[in-house]
Amino acid sequence: MFQNYLEVAPWHIRENTFDPENHEKSESIFSIGNGQMGQRANFEESYSGPSLQGSYVAGVYYPDKTRVGWWKNGYPEYFAKVLNSCNWIGLRVVIDGEELDLAKHKVLSFSRTLDMKRGLLQRQCIVQLSDGKKEVELVAERFCNLAEPDLGAISYAIKPINFSGGIKITSYLDFDVQNRDSNYGETFWVPLGAMVGEHSGVVAAATKKTDFHVAVAMRNLWLCNGFDFETHAEGTIDKMGAGNVYAFPLEQGKTYTLHKHCAVLSSMNHPKAALMQLAQDRVAMAADAGFESLRAAHVAAWAEKWKHSDIEIEGDAAAQQGIRFNIFQLHQTYTGEDERLNIGPKGFTGEKYGGSTYWDTEAYCLPFYLATEAPRVARNLLQYRYKHLPKAIENAEKLGFSNGAALYPMVTMNGEECHNEWEITFEEIHRNGAIAYAIYNYIRHTEDEAYLLEGGLDVLIGISRFWAQRVNWSEAKQKWVMLGVTGPNEYENNVNNNWYTNYIAAWTLRFTRESIATAQRIDANKTSALLTTLQFDAAKELDHWAAIVENIYYPIAEDLGIVLQQEGFLDKPQQLASDLPLNERPINQHWSWDRILRSVFIKQADVLQGFFFFEDDFTLDEIERNFNYYEPRTVHESSLSPCVHVVLAARLGKIEKAYELYLRTSRLDLDDYNKEVAEGLHITSMAGTWMSVVQGFGGMRIINNQLHFNPMLPKQWSALKFQVRWRKALLLVSLSADAVAVENLTSEKITCFVNGKPLTV
Amino acid sequence: MFQNYLEVAPWHIRENTFDPENHEKSESIFSIGNGQMGQRANFEESYSGPSLQGSYVAGVYYPDKTRVGWWKNGYPEYFAKVLNSCNWIGLRVVIDGEELDLAKHKVLSFSRTLDMKRGLLQRQCIVQLSDGKKEVELVAERFCNLAEPDLGAISYAIKPINFSGGIKITSYLDFDVQNRDSNYGETFWVPLGAMVGEHSGVVAAATKKTDFHVAVAMRNLWLCNGFDFETHAEGTIDKMGAGNVYAFPLEQGKTYTLHKHCAVLSSMNHPKAALMQLAQDRVAMAADAGFESLRAAHVAAWAEKWKHSDIEIEGDAAAQQGIRFNIFQLHQTYTGEDERLNIGPKGFTGEKYGGSTYWDTEAYCLPFYLATEAPRVARNLLQYRYKHLPKAIENAEKLGFSNGAALYPMVTMNGEECHNEWEITFEEIHRNGAIAYAIYNYIRHTEDEAYLLEGGLDVLIGISRFWAQRVNWSEAKQKWVMLGVTGPNEYENNVNNNWYTNYIAAWTLRFTRESIATAQRIDANKTSALLTTLQFDAAKELDHWAAIVENIYYPIAEDLGIVLQQEGFLDKPQQLASDLPLNERPINQHWSWDRILRSVFIKQADVLQGFFFFEDDFTLDEIERNFNYYEPRTVHESSLSPCVHVVLAARLGKIEKAYELYLRTSRLDLDDYNKEVAEGLHITSMAGTWMSVVQGFGGMRIINNQLHFNPMLPKQWSALKFQVRWRKALLLVSLSADAVAVENLTSEKITCFVNGKPLTV
Repeated sequence: MFQNYLEVAPWHIRENTFDPENHEKSESIFSIGNGQMGQRANFEESYSGPSLQGSYVAGVYYPDKTRVGWWKNGYPEYFAKVLNSCNWIGLRVVIDGEELDLAKHKVLSFSRTLDMKRGLLQRQCIVQLSDGKKEVELVAERFCNLAEPDLGAISYAIKPINFSGGIKITSYLDFDVQNRDSNYGETFWVPLGAMVGEHSGVVAAATKKTDFHVAVAMRNLWLCNGFDFETHAEGTIDKMGAGNVYAFPLEQGKTYTLHKHCAVLSSMNHPKAALMQLAQDRVAMAADAGFESLRAAHVAAWAEKWKHSDIEIEGDAAAQQGIRFNIFQLHQTYTGEDERLNIGPKGFTGEKYGGSTYWDTEAYCLPFYLATEAPRVARNLLQYRYKHLPKAIENAEKLGFSNGAALYPMVTMNGEECHNEWEITFEEIHRNGAIAYAIYNYIRHTEDEAYLLEGGLDVLIGISRFWAQRVNWSEAKQKWVMLGVTGPNEYENNVNNNWYTNYIAAWTLRFTRESIATAQRIDANKTSALLTTLQFDAAKELDHWAAIVENIYYPIAEDLGIVLQQEGFLDKPQQLASDLPLNERPINQHWSWDRILRSVFIKQADVLQGFFFFEDDFTLDEIERNFNYYEPRTVHESSLSPCVHVVLAARLGKIEKAYELYLRTSRLDLDDYNKEVAEGLHITSMAGTWMSVVQGFGGMRIINNQLHFNPMLPKQWSALKFQVRWRKALLLVSLSADAVAVENLTSEKITCFVNGKPLTV
Repeated sequence: MFQNYLEVAPWHIRENTFDPENHEKSESIFSIGNGQMGQRANFEESYSGPSLQGSYVAGVYYPDKTRVGWWKNGYPEYFAKVLNSCNWIGLRVVIDGEELDLAKHKVLSFSRTLDMKRGLLQRQCIVQLSDGKKEVELVAERFCNLAEPDLGAISYAIKPINFSGGIKITSYLDFDVQNRDSNYGETFWVPLGAMVGEHSGVVAAATKKTDFHVAVAMRNLWLCNGFDFETHAEGTIDKMGAGNVYAFPLEQGKTYTLHKHCAVLSSMNHPKAALMQLAQDRVAMAADAGFESLRAAHVAAWAEKWKHSDIEIEGDAAAQQGIRFNIFQLHQTYTGEDERLNIGPKGFTGEKYGGSTYWDTEAYCLPFYLATEAPRVARNLLQYRYKHLPKAIENAEKLGFSNGAALYPMVTMNGEECHNEWEITFEEIHRNGAIAYAIYNYIRHTEDEAYLLEGGLDVLIGISRFWAQRVNWSEAKQKWVMLGVTGPNEYENNVNNNWYTNYIAAWTLRFTRESIATAQRIDANKTSALLTTLQFDAAKELDHWAAIVENIYYPIAEDLGIVLQQEGFLDKPQQLASDLPLNERPINQHWSWDRILRSVFIKQADVLQGFFFFEDDFTLDEIERNFNYYEPRTVHESSLSPCVHVVLAARLGKIEKAYELYLRTSRLDLDDYNKEVAEGLHITSMAGTWMSVVQGFGGMRIINNQLHFNPMLPKQWSALKFQVRWRKALLLVSLSADAVAVENLTSEKITCFVNGKPLTV
């Protein structure tokens, strides 16, 4: 197992010593957010060691001019970057003339804690000043308010342990920030204004090009030993920042606590002209309510989140911590209240990749939100894509498609494609299939068939039209073929007839045809009007689709009894992942791209992604043969890889394999498997971890529109408990080695199946 | 046909009116060079309109930090740029307070001429100053001295036609230049020093990183009406430049002529410490010799070049001009005197692409130099690659190859790979085959078998070792296969079993084995010592090679009687280039990359490149079937495409097709077919034009080590004359519609074959 420096505990993450080597990792892991804003666990006071400073506001992005080696026709000109926004936590603390900076002082004791139950980031430390004598205790706590998501608050307490002296402390807002991944070293904000009061300040800036406005206001209140403490401040101001500078004497043994309240408002939700004023009003209200009261509301909101989404694992403390960490980060990233937002691959924990939306959302994240949140949350994720349909059509047109064919982007913020590697941008088109599949998944889970007439059908038809144009008739094969694609396994590029892509394309065509029929059954007039609007030529288009479905080419290896990842796969030198020397793994860090491409090694589920999505279409034997062939050739170098394999392995009764893979997904970031957690967390794969537990070990399946549980616990676990929303009911599933209990927490009677036997609860 | 603005004439290129729209094109087309330095046809005086200023010094490059979208393991960090160097032609001409600038004045008459016979760039114009009255005549001539290639000279004459007045003229050197294609907008030169005398100046600078030093010195002499003219100069100097500023009265009707001599010396050829002094010495000597004398030597050197390389075409003035333009530019780019130099794709006519060496050299240029120059010229081109062998081995090691396997770079200056598109850099490996083929071609043309022991065998073994590792055994096919390659047709990427690549790989293995035997025959001891040095395991390696040769997979379409460009080619939607609407061509400007990749369309000869190289291995029937299949699917969007097709078409008696394609290659730049001549000329494809004439219409072939001519003239040509060096002889071949004459210009008796019949001359 990988070693790490973090305490194993059911409800928190904690580091107990300060090691600058770990600081950037901890900044990611201890990140906090509330779906509307979030930030890395940077220290409040100055820190001169390596640090990636990051505060982010949901939906606020910048289209940074793309950087490519060689331009290809069809590339997007811009890459939407998740923007580092105003640093609102900043404090500059100077004690007896010496600036507090953990990179420079002797740190006598230290702990940093992420309280996942209550959504709090806490820190306690004692540092020795450079005279080798004076000791100062810091106790800090902060949160991004889940109850009122435009608010953040910090409690920052300073105690001179063994001396009296003087302090100068500046509480500031700073918009003069950069993105480390800026393509041309540019800054992305232009100042709009800053003001400062005695205990308050406000600063606003606008993004270049996109003209998002963000205003951040602060209020600073002081306590001494828990009582109000009167002190005066000087104001400092420049065009990108504002600060309140306090200077007062420190008495030995007394605790001086700053409550810094901040309001972060963006033009996503408020009129631009009023933004600075509104931010000041909000923060004034927050300060009036007070830190303790806001904290209580925030903690209560977290309790509500946990109420239905918690998973309890007994007997395996690391697994328990891992799954809670994943669920916690998912909630911090996306709350489902705003259909313009999505689940960024790094959430609010880093800036890498850019864009907020990948196919991860539909393929990996949707099931979590379907099972743990009200249906509107999942529906908002679908609406997000519906709103982007015109851009998806434009995107397809740029590539030469027509007639309303839609190609959803690989990476996007506003619907426009951001990615610029031809083998991905133009070829990793299976993403379109996952978006269709999400509609299917949503409807079968919620029974909300009416959604088809509220966006679903538009999207399905757009995607189906794309598939219908993307295949071509092969005279040689007398089959429909799909040339030049990249499957989910990105260690193959530009292959012909990727089985998964062909399969999901044909499936989409079938499902769209069925969905048109469903819509007609629900509301024939509305459906007919919609089809007219879409200029849908039913006779011609449906016939063409049917012809493709009937006669699309699937590569198979008859003698092996498996489908082939793509044509020609068996020409590769045959090796297993277990043949790879440890010092060459991960291969993406040790091998040339050329060598990776030509090898048999698979980055993440490709064929098996299809067997995962469409399990019911295959016999257990078929699934097993394909699993046994492909999994040993898979290096799981995508964070999205293990979960799909866990679910299939559990299904096949390979419980040890499932558990081995589960460990890789559930503690991927906590244990920093890929040596890159410093750049941010792998948010979307966290939903995969949830799937591993609930669909893998919990064995949850929807078969013929019925809910099934075929659970199988790893021997390391004595019990597992999770909840699932199903239609109008809410079920509590409790598993132990030899018992399964399903409790219905609602009055809505339902029947589900446990190990194949009906159970009405 | 394409219209252009240039006069058709046998020995010169001329434009007769000044149109700023054409200026950047003309700057490319009228470029001059002497193999050691060269420059675009920028005006001497200031020009404020669009212009790409460029002066280049052979072999002086800068490794600009690469720009990529997404880094792939194995990419080179640097891209060697052809460097824009000191502007030595500069004059600032101010007449009666008004600066001469053709972008601003009324141009009453204008002609710019490239005298190809004598290697002179000439310009005559009359401009009207802004008062609407004063008229000034300019007559300028300049050359890069072919006889003394570190010298350049300008004669610049000014005549006030209808007024007397005053002139201030600054003759300057300027190192403060940029590359337009700099990846990060950086400049690449650091100043070393500048000095100025009354009629002289010198400036030196060094390239960043590579530390090449270049010093340029000038001497300025004045004449009035052809007689020495005494005038004084002020000096101007800054860290990157030096100038002599003259001011004197102008008398109406008198001609004031400046002779500006320049010496351009680089640390490629001279010690750094002495460079500035040596440049001053050289230019002093030049000035002493005088413009006329230098010009005479230069013109004589050109006469010598033309003596054996000229091609005469009767009856088709455009073709005559085209072929001479091509030959002229080839001579300007590469004279073969320095084995460290090569034939840059843009020569000294632009900065695009960077790197000096592509597989173009071996595949397209070598035959020209073999036939028109002494063998040492072609040999120097081979030695260039031999010297780069260690880098080619390193390059292969970066990709995971071992045991001395060599992969020559796609683009290079010093042997290191510069390119960074994985599908090219890592996959377009057929380039290695062309380098082996060039050795074969050189030896059969010159009979210099001894070359095998002077570098040839080292290179062949390195390349063969690469092929032997690059193929893999396919259990499925029970054949050796080559996966993941890009053939010469770059409109396909990452294909399996590209026929051409497989064929040339197997050919290399055979030829290397034969070459080892040849070397052993010549000098068994030396050969054995060499093989020991190379740790060549003859038994094992030769066996492995033989196994591959015997059992490598070639994709074919039996029913069509053709080989397949790659596996799966027949799955593509079948279309012909003639089906493409004109407004979608060239497809690389109108289609997305995705669409191009999936289409059947071929950029340049791929299968047919193999039939061109290895014509003797196939029956005429086989060649014809493949030509008839592939040529109609070829869009010829590479400048290297038409020539190969011309040669094959002529061979097949398709003389009209050959002529149609010939027109595309011979006047590609003169007629600006691809609308990009402003960026520079397509130097390497010019050698392809030569091949089209000599190997196409002249029907020159080497069959079984014998020289053959099977000529066939297009009906537009009444006669064709060219010379060919063959072993120790020099042949003059004269063709007309019904006669073929071969004259031997040496006393060395040889036998060649005309239309299959032996002819001893």
